[in-house]
Amino acid sequence: MTATSPPPEALRNPHPFDVALALRADGAGRFIATTSPAYWNMVGPYGGITAAAVLEAILRSEGVIGDPVALTVNYAAPIRAGEYVLETRAIRSNRTTQHWSVMLVQGDHREVMVSATAVFALRRPTWSDTEAKAPDMSPALDCPRVKPRSDIAWFDRYDMRVPAGGMSFGGSESLTTGWIRDDPPRPLDFPALASICDTFFPRVYLRRAARVPIGTVSLNIYFHADRAAVARNGEGYLSTRAQAQAYGGGFYDHHAQVWAADGTLLAVTQQIVWFKE
Amino acid sequence: MTATSPPPEALRNPHPFDVALALRADGAGRFIATTSPAYWNMVGPYGGITAAAVLEAILRSEGVIGDPVALTVNYAAPIRAGEYVLETRAIRSNRTTQHWSVMLVQGDHREVMVSATAVFALRRPTWSDTEAKAPDMSPALDCPRVKPRSDIAWFDRYDMRVPAGGMSFGGSESLTTGWIRDDPPRPLDFPALASICDTFFPRVYLRRAARVPIGTVSLNIYFHADRAAVARNGEGYLSTRAQAQAYGGGFYDHHAQVWAADGTLLAVTQQIVWFKE
Repeated sequence: MTATSPPPEALRNPHPFDVALALRADGAGRFIATTSPAYWNMVGPYGGITAAAVLEAILRSEGVIGDPVALTVNYAAPIRAGEYVLETRAIRSNRTTQHWSVMLVQGDHREVMVSATAVFALRRPTWSDTEAKAPDMSPALDCPRVKPRSDIAWFDRYDMRVPAGGMSFGGSESLTTGWIRDDPPRPLDFPALASICDTFFPRVYLRRAARVPIGTVSLNIYFHADRAAVARNGEGYLSTRAQAQAYGGGFYDHHAQVWAADGTLLAVTQQIVWFKE
Repeated sequence: MTATSPPPEALRNPHPFDVALALRADGAGRFIATTSPAYWNMVGPYGGITAAAVLEAILRSEGVIGDPVALTVNYAAPIRAGEYVLETRAIRSNRTTQHWSVMLVQGDHREVMVSATAVFALRRPTWSDTEAKAPDMSPALDCPRVKPRSDIAWFDRYDMRVPAGGMSFGGSESLTTGWIRDDPPRPLDFPALASICDTFFPRVYLRRAARVPIGTVSLNIYFHADRAAVARNGEGYLSTRAQAQAYGGGFYDHHAQVWAADGTLLAVTQQIVWFKE
């Protein structure tokens, strides 16, 4: 370790995720934030950190009830580096559910870069069951880590592991399973879980065995865990499964699941992605 | 046929779906509509007809570009019988994509009953492939029709067919496949396809072998077909596949696919449903 390489603890205090999500309240439902170089993608912030910021703004809003159940984030334009504003609005509050609308705007003309909706709810004990099956893989530390990429900052903010031979390039199926956690590690919460829902390797890269131009257009997440179940995961690895369903006309989708190490299905997510090929 | 039983043609001209979606333009982005008894559910309109009305309002809006790619409908409160207003807003128009926000409001105080977002886009030819597999079933007319229910009007607006033994009540899996078309038949379009994305038999009814209180909280649809591919289906049966992933804390989800008879994946959809059990 040299004088220019900070010790791991310095990276964790504060954690870059918390730096990226540092929102400044600015009147009724408005929060001011700044894009984070640590989560930069190719032509804008990584979509997952934006989804996390949307959720964080609601979680910090006055009068919020319960936990997130559903989140949809529509990416309308690449957010520019610098300051942005999250405008949150509780459009309907019922006894046990609450519906939110969030606009992410930039500039003097309040240019909309992202629009989002969320449903929050007070969860209560009911009959429960999980039909989906958690991936059957070697333990995380037995799976090789996906190589960091020096050209995409956010990619290095995740420790992603895929079983040996688990990524097939140029094949006829895009199904992958894997492990993931924040790097440096960080106790899981809802914004971090939302962000992880956008980490899946682009299915079109797998199928075409090439990096083609892509951009997520819309991301949908359903949370299947309450705050306590999310927190229980701590800094542990999460297991994931993802597969595309169809590609064509300039768009493809994928559907994915995120599991706690103890076998709890924490979230299911699907997204539709613009691509050029 | 008696004097009190109208001939089938009378039911089709106009079709009840078109009656339900008769919107009256009322100034910039506003459309006035009336709930349809033909698509009534238990305590409000069937959620699918509401999703269809949201899409219809956008399709009829000035300056709309392309075809729908993504639609999210959040059901905030049961819509009351009678008039309602759809307020559409193009929140961002790019060269080939357009982002919409729609609020469904009722009453003098513009009470929000439904909030929705949609992404429209100009599709263009690209590499295409379908990874999902269409259900392998007997032809529609060889499958028995699910018995109409006199207590739920909208249920009779669909001719739903499930292979013999294809619905398991009280088992450990909620997976079903089936056939569906409008009843009376009607050429498929995007609003009709959106409506069909909400027809899936409640997974919790299958698993618990009981009708428990439920309500869809949020519905998400990705369209994988352009206008021509949707129209090609005509009045043909569509094949479907649906399965829940997890139940607990008062909510469960399901994930589903809708296929044209020729094997084209037209739409994928997931929804999260409040339940009490």
